[in-house]
This record gives sequence, C-alpha cells and structure tokens, in this order.
Amino acid sequence: MLAHDENERVTRVGPGTPMGKTMRQYWIPALLAWELPEPDCPPVRVRLLGEALVAFRNTQGRIGLLEEHCPHRQASLVLGRNEDCGLRCVYHGWKFDVAGECVDMMNEPEELSFAHKIRATAYPTVEAGGLVWAYLGPPDRRPPPPLFAWTQAPPSHRHVSKVIQESNWLQGLEGGIDTSHAPILHRVLDPDSTRPGFKTTDPFVRGKAPTLELDFTDYGYRYAGVRPLEGGDLHIRAYHFVLPFHQIRPARIGGSARGFSGASGHIWVPMDDETTMVYNWEHSTTEPLTDEDRLERRLGNGPLDVDQSTFRSKRNRENHYLQDRRVQKTETFTGIDGINVQDRAVQESMGPIVDRTRDHLGPADRAVIQARRLLLQATRTVEAGGIPPGIVPTYYTLRPAEAVVPHATDWRTLLVPEPLRPKVLEQV
Amino acid sequence: MLAHDENERVTRVGPGTPMGKTMRQYWIPALLAWELPEPDCPPVRVRLLGEALVAFRNTQGRIGLLEEHCPHRQASLVLGRNEDCGLRCVYHGWKFDVAGECVDMMNEPEELSFAHKIRATAYPTVEAGGLVWAYLGPPDRRPPPPLFAWTQAPPSHRHVSKVIQESNWLQGLEGGIDTSHAPILHRVLDPDSTRPGFKTTDPFVRGKAPTLELDFTDYGYRYAGVRPLEGGDLHIRAYHFVLPFHQIRPARIGGSARGFSGASGHIWVPMDDETTMVYNWEHSTTEPLTDEDRLERRLGNGPLDVDQSTFRSKRNRENHYLQDRRVQKTETFTGIDGINVQDRAVQESMGPIVDRTRDHLGPADRAVIQARRLLLQATRTVEAGGIPPGIVPTYYTLRPAEAVVPHATDWRTLLVPEPLRPKVLEQV
Amino acid sequence: MLAHDENERVTRVGPGTPMGKTMRQYWIPALLAWELPEPDCPPVRVRLLGEALVAFRNTQGRIGLLEEHCPHRQASLVLGRNEDCGLRCVYHGWKFDVAGECVDMMNEPEELSFAHKIRATAYPTVEAGGLVWAYLGPPDRRPPPPLFAWTQAPPSHRHVSKVIQESNWLQGLEGGIDTSHAPILHRVLDPDSTRPGFKTTDPFVRGKAPTLELDFTDYGYRYAGVRPLEGGDLHIRAYHFVLPFHQIRPARIGGSARGFSGASGHIWVPMDDETTMVYNWEHSTTEPLTDEDRLERRLGNGPLDVDQSTFRSKRNRENHYLQDRRVQKTETFTGIDGINVQDRAVQESMGPIVDRTRDHLGPADRAVIQARRLLLQATRTVEAGGIPPGIVPTYYTLRPAEAVVPHATDWRTLLVPEPLRPKVLEQV
Repeated sequence: MLAHDENERVTRVGPGTPMGKTMRQYWIPALLAWELPEPDCPPVRVRLLGEALVAFRNTQGRIGLLEEHCPHRQASLVLGRNEDCGLRCVYHGWKFDVAGECVDMMNEPEELSFAHKIRATAYPTVEAGGLVWAYLGPPDRRPPPPLFAWTQAPPSHRHVSKVIQESNWLQGLEGGIDTSHAPILHRVLDPDSTRPGFKTTDPFVRGKAPTLELDFTDYGYRYAGVRPLEGGDLHIRAYHFVLPFHQIRPARIGGSARGFSGASGHIWVPMDDETTMVYNWEHSTTEPLTDEDRLERRLGNGPLDVDQSTFRSKRNRENHYLQDRRVQKTETFTGIDGINVQDRAVQESMGPIVDRTRDHLGPADRAVIQARRLLLQATRTVEAGGIPPGIVPTYYTLRPAEAVVPHATDWRTLLVPEPLRPKVLEQV
Repeated sequence: MLAHDENERVTRVGPGTPMGKTMRQYWIPALLAWELPEPDCPPVRVRLLGEALVAFRNTQGRIGLLEEHCPHRQASLVLGRNEDCGLRCVYHGWKFDVAGECVDMMNEPEELSFAHKIRATAYPTVEAGGLVWAYLGPPDRRPPPPLFAWTQAPPSHRHVSKVIQESNWLQGLEGGIDTSHAPILHRVLDPDSTRPGFKTTDPFVRGKAPTLELDFTDYGYRYAGVRPLEGGDLHIRAYHFVLPFHQIRPARIGGSARGFSGASGHIWVPMDDETTMVYNWEHSTTEPLTDEDRLERRLGNGPLDVDQSTFRSKRNRENHYLQDRRVQKTETFTGIDGINVQDRAVQESMGPIVDRTRDHLGPADRAVIQARRLLLQATRTVEAGGIPPGIVPTYYTLRPAEAVVPHATDWRTLLVPEPLRPKVLEQV
Repeated sequence: MLAHDENERVTRVGPGTPMGKTMRQYWIPALLAWELPEPDCPPVRVRLLGEALVAFRNTQGRIGLLEEHCPHRQASLVLGRNEDCGLRCVYHGWKFDVAGECVDMMNEPEELSFAHKIRATAYPTVEAGGLVWAYLGPPDRRPPPPLFAWTQAPPSHRHVSKVIQESNWLQGLEGGIDTSHAPILHRVLDPDSTRPGFKTTDPFVRGKAPTLELDFTDYGYRYAGVRPLEGGDLHIRAYHFVLPFHQIRPARIGGSARGFSGASGHIWVPMDDETTMVYNWEHSTTEPLTDEDRLERRLGNGPLDVDQSTFRSKRNRENHYLQDRRVQKTETFTGIDGINVQDRAVQESMGPIVDRTRDHLGPADRAVIQARRLLLQATRTVEAGGIPPGIVPTYYTLRPAEAVVPHATDWRTLLVPEPLRPKVLEQV
C-alpha cells in the first residue's frame, strides 16, 4: 500500500514530474527499428512520457526524433516530407535535420530567411537490439547507450515486438516482477488442452505457493520465487528488475518443448500516464529463433494478435478480451487466450492508474513492494542530483534462471556462470 | 423550477451525497434474476449509484454482490472464476464468499495466509419479482424486503425487462409521473395506423387537457389526471409514486384489444449521475401473460428493441431514435416507434442532467413539482436521522386505475377495493 | 506569437467572451438555405458560437432560429413538429412561432394556459446567397444585412457548400489569409499528374517566395503576395479579409482550364471553440457555374467528399486524411487529395486551439499577424461600445485578383475597375 502522494509520485511521468525527471535520465525505447525501414521513409508519430514527437530516418540512415509540431505555426511534422536529409513541414516547407536545426524555409525570400535562428526540440537516439532508443533528459547527464545482453545478440537470436496497454506503466511492471501470479493467472486446467499457459503437471504449478527472496543490486534487484515440490526439491524462477522498467525472466522459447534456452523480458514504456507501450523481447542463447517463434502465439504479442500499424491488441477491453466463460470453466484459469493478453486484462481492469492506497499486500508481494520502494528512492536520488540504479550499464551480462533443484540449493548459484557478477547491496 | 443547489441535491447519487444517502436507505434493483441463470454461472458487472460492483450466484444458488475490484491489488472480479461457493480473482487466486469474506489465498504459502483478515465490501440481496434487489446502506437501517404486488405475483402473471437511459434518473421519473404528456407525445394521428400509441378516438386523447389531483401518502403520493370528455363524462388515469423511483400505472397489456387487465410500471435506478437503468414491469391480475406480451412491442423495451447483453436500445441518440419525419408528418406525433423509446428520446434530449433552473412549470406539472418536493424532503429527513416515505412496505396492494366515469365521480373510489387503503396525509 | 491571454481572447467565442461579443455584432451564416427546403419541413439542429439552436421554415416560408430546448422542461425542439406556422415540442405540445412567442400549450386546459407569458430565445435571420444568416447580438445594434457581391449574384452564377473542421475557427481563417502556404502545401510535383493543386509550371509556384503588402481598410484589409518571376515579371495574388471571418480570393473556377473568371472564398463560422463550420463559396462573374463546378472536386468540399447530412469530410483525422505516402513521394506535396482537405489536415494537426505562444513568425506571416491584431482591436472596440470593421457593408463590390504583370506594377490597380473603391486607412 502506498500513500496517495507516493502513488502520484511513482506513476506520473510528464515533463517536470519527479518520475518524469527520473525516467528522463535513462535511454528508453521510442519505437521499433523496422517502423523506419529505410532512408527517407515516412515519418512516424511517437508518444513518449506525455510528449508528442515524430521520428524519421534521413537520407543517410540517421534517425531524428523531434517535437511533433513545427516551430513555425505548430502544424504536425507527421504529415511531413522526409527528403534530402531532413523532415519538411508540408504547410510552409520549413525543413529540419536530425539535430532539429531548421535548414530551409520555402515560404520566405532567401534574403529574409531566418532559418538559422530556428530549432526544433530534438532528442538523441541510438539503435540497438531492433529498437530505437531515445534520451529525453538534460544533455550533460546523458549516460552511455543501453547494453543489455539481448540487444547485443545477433538478429537471428533475438526478437522484439510491441503492443499498447491501456493503463499506467507501473501496473505492467508490477505484474512483470510478480512471479507469484504466473502459475495462477496463466494456469491450464485441462491436461489435454493445447491453449497456452502452465499445466498442472508443470513444476511451476505443482510447487506450493512460493517464498520470495530478493537481493538489491546496482541496477535494481534480482529475486527468485522458491516453490517447494513434493519430495523435497525446489522449483526456482529467478528474475532481474533493471530500473526504471525492465524485466528479465527465464524464457521458454518455442514453448516447453524446446525447454529453457535463453532469456526474455518486457519493457513498460510510458506513452503517457494512462497508456503504455509494452516491448516484448526474446533472446535465444543457443539456436536461432524461428519464424514460428517470432509469431509469439503463446504470449499473444505477435502479428496474429496485435495490429501492426496501430499496435492495438485484437483482444482488448472493448471486446472483454474475447473471454470465453466455457473455456474458463474447464480448460484455462481465465478463459482468455494468450499469456500476455491475460496480464493486460487483469492490469487494465485495475483502472487507468490503480489506487494503491487500497492495496492489501502480503509476503508474496515482496518484489512488488521493493520495486515501488526502489522507484520512489530513485526519484529522490535524482532530485538530489544523484545517479539512480540502472543508469550505468553494469547489467549487460545478466542471466535469469528457471530450474528444479535439490532442497537447500541457493538460487543465486543458478545465475552463474556470469562474466561479471552483479554487485549485491543487500539481501532481503 | 429548482434552485441550482436543489437540482444538485435531488439528482446526484454518489456515495456521500444527500440523495445518494437517501437512496441507500431502500432496497433497489441491481439486475435481472435471469442474468445469473444458475449456480456457478459467470459473474456480472453491476453499476449502481456510482459504485462499481460484481454480482454472482454461488454453488448453493445464493447471490453475492461485491465491490468490483479485488482488495488485494484491485484486479476486476468480473474476470473472476465463480466456483465452489465463492468468486475467485484470476490474478492471484484470492476467493470471496457472498458475504465478502476472503476464504482462500492461492499466492501465499498456507502458513503465511492472512485471508481471515481480508473482506471485500458486500451488499445484501434478495430476489423478488424476477429481480435481484440490493441494499447499499448502513446495516442497522436495513428495512424489510420490497413488497410490491407485482413482485409477489406468480411468474406467469408478471414480466420485467430493462434498458439503459442516457440521462440522470430523475428525468425518467419525472416523465413517468407526468400523465399530461402521454396523450400528446404518444399520440397516433392516423386512425388506420398500426404503430403503437394512443389514437385520437381514445378517451385519453379525446379528453381535454387534464386537471391533476394528488394525495400525499406514507409511500409518496397517488394522483390522477382528470380529463373532461364531450357529454360531461370524465376520463381518469390514476397513478402511484412510491419513493424513491417507482411508478405504478394502469396497464393496457396486449394493447387496447385486451383492455385494462392489470398494472405496469417503471423503476428508474441510477447507475451513476448520468446513466439510468430503467426496469419495466407488467402485472396481469387476470389471465397469464403471453410470449407476445413479453416482447413489449408497443413499449419498445423488449428483446426486439433492446440488446439483451448490453441493454442498449437499438433506437438511440446516436441514430436519432430512427425518427422518420414522414411518419411524423401524418401518422404519429413523433415519427419514433415505441412508446418508451419516445419517452427516452425527449428525456435524453434534455441533456445528461437537465438544468431545472430554466423550467417554466404550470398546473399540468403538479405531479412533477410535488415529486421534487417530496424527494428533497426525503433527503432532509434522512439527514435528520428519520425514515423517508416508501421504506416501510405499506404499498404492497396499491392498484392504479384508468376509466371513463360520470361527472363528479371521485377517482379515489376507483382505487378500491383495496385490502388496505393507503394512509392519506394531505390532498393538494 | 501571442501572449496566452491574447490567444484566449481572440479564439474563444462563447456567450460573454470578448470575441463572442464581437462576433455577435455581425450577421453570421447559420446554415445552408437548402437544409430547410420548403415550408413546414423538418427542423434542423444548429450549433453557433457555443449555443444550441434549432432552425425551421414555417408554413409561410419564414425562417425561425430558436434556442434548441423548450422553455417548459428543456426537451429538444429538434425532435419537434413543424406545423401550421410554428414549431411544436413533442413532449407536451408547446408551440413557438418564428419570433419565439409561445402560441399554444396542449398540456394545459385552455383557461389555465399561460402561453402568452412564455418566450423562447429567437434570433433574426435573413436569406442571402444560398445561406441563412443570423444575428445573435443585442437588438439595438443589429446592422444592415450582409451585402457581399457573391450573395447578390444570381443562383446560376454562385455556389456555396459547407464542411466541418475539427479545430478552432481562427486556425482556418489564418490559413485562408496566408497566401504564402498555397504554392507549397498545394503543390503538384509531377507534371503529368491529374491530382488537384498547383503545378510547378504555374507562375504561382514558379515565382520566388513572396513579399506581402497589405492595406488596412474599413472592412478589414486587402493584401497581395508579390512573387518575382524569372525575367522580371511579377506574379500577383490579391485577397480581402472582411471581419470577422471572411476570405475573398481569386477564383480558378473549373480549374486552370477555364482561367480566372471570378471570386471565391471561405467563411469560418465557429460552432464552438473547438469546432468550425467552413462555408465555401464561388462566384462566376462571366458564364454560369456548371454541375461539374458544383462538385468542387479540386477543393474536396462537395458531395463526393463531404457527407451531406453530417457535413463531415470523408477524408479526416480519424483516417489520416487518406494520406498516401507513395503519392507524396513523387506526385503531390502532401499525398492528400483535395486542396481544402490539405488545409484542414494541417490546421487540425495544430490541435483543437493552437498555442500561439509557441509561434515563430516571419515576414511571410504578415497577413496572419495583422489579422490577429485587427481581431484583438475589434474586441476592444466592441468593449468600448464602438463599431468594429466589416459591420457596415462597404465591401459589397470587392474584387480579388490574380495576374502576371510587369515589374513595378502596383497590384492595387488590378482591383479596379470597382464601382466603389475601399477606403484605405493605412498601408503596411
């Protein structure tokens, strides 16, 4: 449970808000790289932390991310012409380069042009892992580019998609670092079912309700759900939370058939206070990902489930997520198809910004409680001029883990071999 | 005409408002009983007096009405599983019985469960007359269950439907206790027309504009429109208003062909300040109602006219109620089909909450004026700790009346024989 | 650039606002005359300067423009019956004549009728040029009817249409008196294209960026864009701005094939602060307009492009104006079809009420800057009890001009012969 003003502080991300200022210290995903497929392709509208922006790839392949509205008279540059190393407003022909400099003014006689005095707000970008990342903060605080293991993998071994969630970003993050819900919400009741989820024979489900163990690190925390199995073994699922909004979890790429062969995760990027762009990535550390893997059938995040121009899910609040009550009765816990559709359904059902003064949390919510605490701390660190966790890319070799192990095994040993172990600050 | 603050007081029904507190003294309809057709059927979302609720019928057939959002972390219980004597949240598996007690916590190890400390807000319910009624007020003020004559009739002789009206509830009620509009708004101009309404040959229409006579009672009031006919006879239509929002009117079940064979009425239940669920009932005191009667073709409230999952009318504001201007020219007064569709059209056209400071009322509005007065009085009675009219079920034998009678007949004699006559407080 | 309070002052038009009071000094278009095709035809909903109104044509052909809601209990008169010299509310049968007098009350016995005490707000109207014009201001300030040359032309030689723009009215006006954007936004890149717009061979486009010259007059101002052509000639386009929201521009009726044969213009009438009804007129001073002319294919304002019951454009914000990025690449500057669709696209993209504190204006914006200045002055004139420009119809013979002329020609000579020259107040 949070006090009302803490809930406001941790959820709202517009310019000038405490969390808004905090997120603007990080590189954050702005769009998928394929949305700008080639030089001089059409510009794309981007909404990020409550700001209206436009992205374009110029003639040389460089990416610009500008304020959406032309400084002249505020016409949208999304309607604009992407040509000859700049984005040109169609209203009066003002043209801007990727740095936001106005480089041409069609409406003024040459001798009267004041283009050199005009700048559009422009944010730096980098491409990594199939994403365009942006930095919206003060130039003198710009950190090194993001270095996640998955963003450095070859394209054959990684995949990323996105989908809009109609709620505040923190509801998404809290679901993603809450291992306790997964074998409940995503349970498959019928052993013969082919619908996605975790069957009752899965040790994840067979195990008793977990105890949660958590280590604070210099990027956020790592934690595990430890589930006792009959016979004394333990089922372990160990995750990482990298501030401000990254989850790294054990992957079951290709479904349980292919086993644990890598990592996956989500990034919950606020478009504005009540809308989130969820990025979904997978990283195979062994064989290449297949076309079938990239459909994300199990998760419900791929092109079969999400419109690839609007990034709206076909199963959504308007159509009650196509919940089938007969399926819910006998086959799956929710009657909703798609593991991440199930997540969005419950998270959106909490309202646009959930009122955390009404929570009743228990030991199973430890990871959620500590994430809120870390995020609130981060806002105060930034206010004090400090550097919050996760800015310095110490997290690039992080590995999640899922395994069944003998009683008394320390789950932390599953996270090695690691070239660099995270610096653990505190175990709770 | 009302002052602005009186209009606010009499219309708004959220928690803590004067009228909200007043309505929470009464049993009020929450949903149709058939929406929960059998034990362990899917739960149903209910919006009542601005509160978000969920209704379910448990394994034993008992009905629960809980706050919609799980006390754990506010996921909607409407997505939940109705199983084994409780409604279970799909997010972490917390389960609640019809009394709101948390009886299971799937996400916590048994030894850490704190289920016994958790309660969801739960409201008592009763089934009567094909409706589920709820009481949302303080437990120590809970009155005896509602006892309308129609709710006690056998199912063969009663019928009830519902439809959403996109306006404040009081606009509906005011239309329902305003007999003076009926032979105008609902008039059929063409004697050969088969469209529903009142033809010019009907004594209701043939009569001159009515004088209104009204007696205050311990449940609200009874009143009659008295219309002089040529030749000296009188046409009488006598209604009851039972607080806070019940109308009882003479029925012409099956159309004028079958004559006056019972009572009918509406209940205008606020979903929130700007949305009303209108319940429509009919009660035959003679022969059983037929399947055709239950289609409510004349009124436009039945399954042919109202979507039976959303309860939205097919003729609505968006499509201008399918008003046909050619039909209006020559055949019916409005060009809109369905007597209650006509009512909703004019009432919704007044705006979400009509501004009663702009009214210009006359003698024909006496019943409307006195209803507002009674409702305002009731809010003050409740504020003073008293019991407003209509709480104590003295109204269970009330009968409406419609008749043509000789000059100088007292309409009150038409309302007998009554086993118990209402206690008349004042005649105005 | 405007200060925030100036932007509020010049854009908002509701009752009591400075610009609202100013616009209420003028006759303004309320609807197209053909929307009320004959006596006793259906009434029409009108939204004007933030007021909800209803228009009807009575049995004698006279036009009434009343407040939308019946003074009795606020039911909408748009649902009403237009019959026997009055508009009758369907709820209780109150009837109003074109002057707003209540002339009948069906719900009250004759001896109790208080109709003579009831008046609905009614505004005077005149028909001119295929439009119904209304005056919403104080009766003692009512000016003479509007006398534009085009409104006085025979129907064979004039045409008028309308379309809704989803933005504040001033964004439309500012686009209309901004000649500098036209050869940019409306440019056709491909010489073989058949899409509407200005080709690069057109002197309007061939000319260099214009200098703007502007004369204040007693109706507003006249101004010209003067574009130097190779070889020393000048391309001239000269417009008039008649307060509060009229543009008069040179017409290319029938496309460039038929040449410059008259005048055309727009009128940006505020429905409310964020919605504008744009009226589009053409006036041929030579041959009659053809049916093909009246389709307005080039502009995109006609029945092929705009729904003639809702007056919503088929190409609109919801569908991104059907912008075709491949067409934009090689064929037209925007990839959007329809010259005025292009205007609406950029103007709507600026937001509902553009924030003019963010502007960066230059010499090419002179006409825009001076229009804002004149409009702000007009609000202060009205506050001081004075008469703003454009009220007294001195503008009835105004002619626009477009021509290629030798160097050093004064564009003002193109505007004669005029029976009456405008009184020029100041040249800037």
